[in-house]
Amino acid sequence: MSVTAASGFEAAGVAAGLKSSGKRDLALVRNTGPLNAAATVFTTNRCKANPVLWSEQVIGDGVVSAIVLNSGGANCYTGARGFQTTHATAEAVAEKLGVSAGDVLVCSTGLIGEQLDLAKLTAGVEEAAGALSADAGLHAAEAIMTTDTRPKEAVRRDPSGWTVGGMAKGAGMLAPGLATMLVVLTTDAVLDAETLDAALRAATRVTFDRLDSDGCMSTNDTVALLASGASGVAPDDAAFRLALTDVCRELAEQLQADAEGASHDIAIEVVNARSEEDAVVVGRAVSRSNLFKAAIFGNDPNWGRVLAAVGTTDAAFDPYGIDVAINGVQVCTKGEPDQPRDLVDLTPRAVHILIDLHAGDETATILTNDLTHDYVHENSAYAS
Amino acid sequence: MSVTAASGFEAAGVAAGLKSSGKRDLALVRNTGPLNAAATVFTTNRCKANPVLWSEQVIGDGVVSAIVLNSGGANCYTGARGFQTTHATAEAVAEKLGVSAGDVLVCSTGLIGEQLDLAKLTAGVEEAAGALSADAGLHAAEAIMTTDTRPKEAVRRDPSGWTVGGMAKGAGMLAPGLATMLVVLTTDAVLDAETLDAALRAATRVTFDRLDSDGCMSTNDTVALLASGASGVAPDDAAFRLALTDVCRELAEQLQADAEGASHDIAIEVVNARSEEDAVVVGRAVSRSNLFKAAIFGNDPNWGRVLAAVGTTDAAFDPYGIDVAINGVQVCTKGEPDQPRDLVDLTPRAVHILIDLHAGDETATILTNDLTHDYVHENSAYAS
Repeated sequence: MSVTAASGFEAAGVAAGLKSSGKRDLALVRNTGPLNAAATVFTTNRCKANPVLWSEQVIGDGVVSAIVLNSGGANCYTGARGFQTTHATAEAVAEKLGVSAGDVLVCSTGLIGEQLDLAKLTAGVEEAAGALSADAGLHAAEAIMTTDTRPKEAVRRDPSGWTVGGMAKGAGMLAPGLATMLVVLTTDAVLDAETLDAALRAATRVTFDRLDSDGCMSTNDTVALLASGASGVAPDDAAFRLALTDVCRELAEQLQADAEGASHDIAIEVVNARSEEDAVVVGRAVSRSNLFKAAIFGNDPNWGRVLAAVGTTDAAFDPYGIDVAINGVQVCTKGEPDQPRDLVDLTPRAVHILIDLHAGDETATILTNDLTHDYVHENSAYAS
Repeated sequence: MSVTAASGFEAAGVAAGLKSSGKRDLALVRNTGPLNAAATVFTTNRCKANPVLWSEQVIGDGVVSAIVLNSGGANCYTGARGFQTTHATAEAVAEKLGVSAGDVLVCSTGLIGEQLDLAKLTAGVEEAAGALSADAGLHAAEAIMTTDTRPKEAVRRDPSGWTVGGMAKGAGMLAPGLATMLVVLTTDAVLDAETLDAALRAATRVTFDRLDSDGCMSTNDTVALLASGASGVAPDDAAFRLALTDVCRELAEQLQADAEGASHDIAIEVVNARSEEDAVVVGRAVSRSNLFKAAIFGNDPNWGRVLAAVGTTDAAFDPYGIDVAINGVQVCTKGEPDQPRDLVDLTPRAVHILIDLHAGDETATILTNDLTHDYVHENSAYAS
C-alpha cells in the first residue's frame, strides 16, 4: 500500500536495467487528483545531485503531478549531461501521463559520479506508465531500494476519512540535513501547498532530522509530500500534522532498523537540556562517535566514550554534573561512576542511552546505529 | 633517546602493575636544569580528565620540574577521589625528587570511568625515581603506550648546539582539539616559558591539530614542552620553531602510521581555499566521512564520497567548480567525471587526496586513516 494507501494515487515499480542485479529500479507515482498540491524538503548538502537541482525548480509553484525515482545511480557530479538526463526523464514522464514536465519531481539514488543510461530510463518510464495501478505501492517501494534489505512503508488512516501513507529508502549515507534519503508521502486530504510545506517541515524536523546512522549526509536526499484531495475531507490541522509525523517517525525507524550492517538500533535520549537545539547537538555528537558505536557493537557499555563525545559540544552543561544511563542502568552520576558497567545488558538489538545534562528542561532523541564489521565490509565494496 | 636526547633530562619507564599485561605503564621525565621552563597544550574537550585539571594548575607559572605519565587508566570521570589520586601521584614524585608538587605535571591514558590504584602508582613512582637515567628515554616511551604497537620518538639537533626531542602515544580517540594524546617534548635550548608557549602553539597548530584519525577527541590530550637550558645556547627563534615543528610533525606521522586498525595513511590536501581555516574545515570533513574511509579500506576510489563530505561544510567554493585527484589521477574536474576511477591504484598504504576548491590560494593537509575491520574489532573489545 504505502504511497497508494491514500486515494487519488497510482504507482508502479519496474526493472529498467539500471541495477546490475536486474531487480526493480524505477518507480513512478502519479497524483490523479482532483488536487495536485505538494511540498518537498531536500538535502542541505551543498553538493546537490542533478535530480535535486531539477526538483527544486519543480516545487517552486507547489504543483506536482507525478514523481519518478530511480535506483542504480545518483546522477550527482555528472555535469550538464547529467542534468539533461534528469530533464529528459521528466519530459518522458510528462509525455506518457499528459502532464507538464515542470510538474514532475525526479529522484535518483546510487553511486555518485557516473552517468545514468537515458535510453534505459526512457524505456523504464514507458513501462512504468503502462503499469500504474492503485495496488502497486509495494512495487514502487521495492524499486527505490539500494542496499536496503526490505521495502519501507507506513500508513495512518484518520477516522474522518483521509489517509496519509509513504515509502522510503535508506541504508547508507544516512545523516539527513533537512531531509533523508528518498521518501514519498501521499495523502488524499484536501490541503494546499503552503499547509503541506509547513506540516512537512514540522514533521521531518523531529523525525528524519533526528536520524543519524553514519554521520554522512547525502547529495540526493528528498522527501516529497503529495496531496490529491480525493477524500474530499479538509483535515484538522493538528490531526494531520500528528498523522504525518507518525508516518515519518515510523519510516525513520524502519530506515534505522535496516541501516547498512547495523546490529544495534540506538536511541540517544538527551534530557534536561537548556534548549532543544542543545539536546540535538549533544545527541548527534554521541551518534557520530565511532568509538562509542564500535563499543556498542561489542556489547561494551563504555560510557566514558559517551561523555568524551558530549564534551566536544558547546551545549550548556557542567561537565561534572552529567548523568548517563545505558539500558536503564545508571552507570554515571554527576561525572562519577555509579552502578557497575557489568550490570548493563547490551545483547538486545534496541539500545537506550539516557544523558541527563541537568541544564534545563528540553529534550531530544537521536536515532543511530552501531559501527560493525558488516558496515565496513558493505561500504568498502559498494562501488565495485 | 627521544625525551632524553636533549641534555638536562632523565627518564624512566617501569611496570607499576596498572596494565593487566604486566608491561611498562608508568613513565617519569625529570628536568635537571639549570632552567625549568615549560609550556603545555591540553585537549579542548570540555570533559577533561583529572590529570588535565591538575596540570592546568601546574603550568600556570611556566615552571615544571618533572612529568609523570601512566597508561592503564585515564583517571577521567572518577570524581574527587580521582583528582586526589592525581594530586597524590604528584606529591609522591615531589617527595622522591625533592621538588614542589606544584611543579609536577601528571598525564594519564586508558579507560575512562575507572579509579586508578594509588598504591600501585606510588610504588611505581618510587621505582621510576630510582631508575631515572639519561639513557632510558625509550623505556618512558614504551610506558605510555596503550593500543600503540610501537613507541614513538623523534629528535632534531641544531648545529649551534641545542637539541629538541620527544615521545608520543596515540592509537585511538585520535582527533586532537588543541593537542593530541600524550606528548612530551624536551629541549636543552635556553628559552623562557613565554617563548616556549608561543612556539609550542605554533607547532601543534599545523601538526597534531591536522591529525584526525577517527574523529574522536580525547579527554586526556596533553602536549608538554620542557626546557632545561643545559646546552647554554639561546637559539634563533625561527630555527627553534622549525625544529620543534619538525619533531611534532614526525611524531604526528608516527601516530597516524600506528593508528588503531588502520591499513592506509591518508593525506587530504586541500588547495586554493579562500582561507587556511576553510582548507582545514574541508579536509577534516572528508577525514570524518566513514563512507569515504571505508571505501579507501576497500581500495575503492569512490570520489563521490569526497565531494559529498565537502558539501557539508560552509567553506567558500562553487560546488560545481571543484577538482579531485586521488593518488595523482584526476578523477573529477569542475564537478564532472574526468579520468576513469579504475586508473587509481590504492594498494599502497600511503594515499593522497587532492581537493582543489578554486576559491583562493590557501592550503592545508589533514592526516587521517581508513576505516577497517580491525578498527571496529579493536574498539569493540577495548574495555573488556
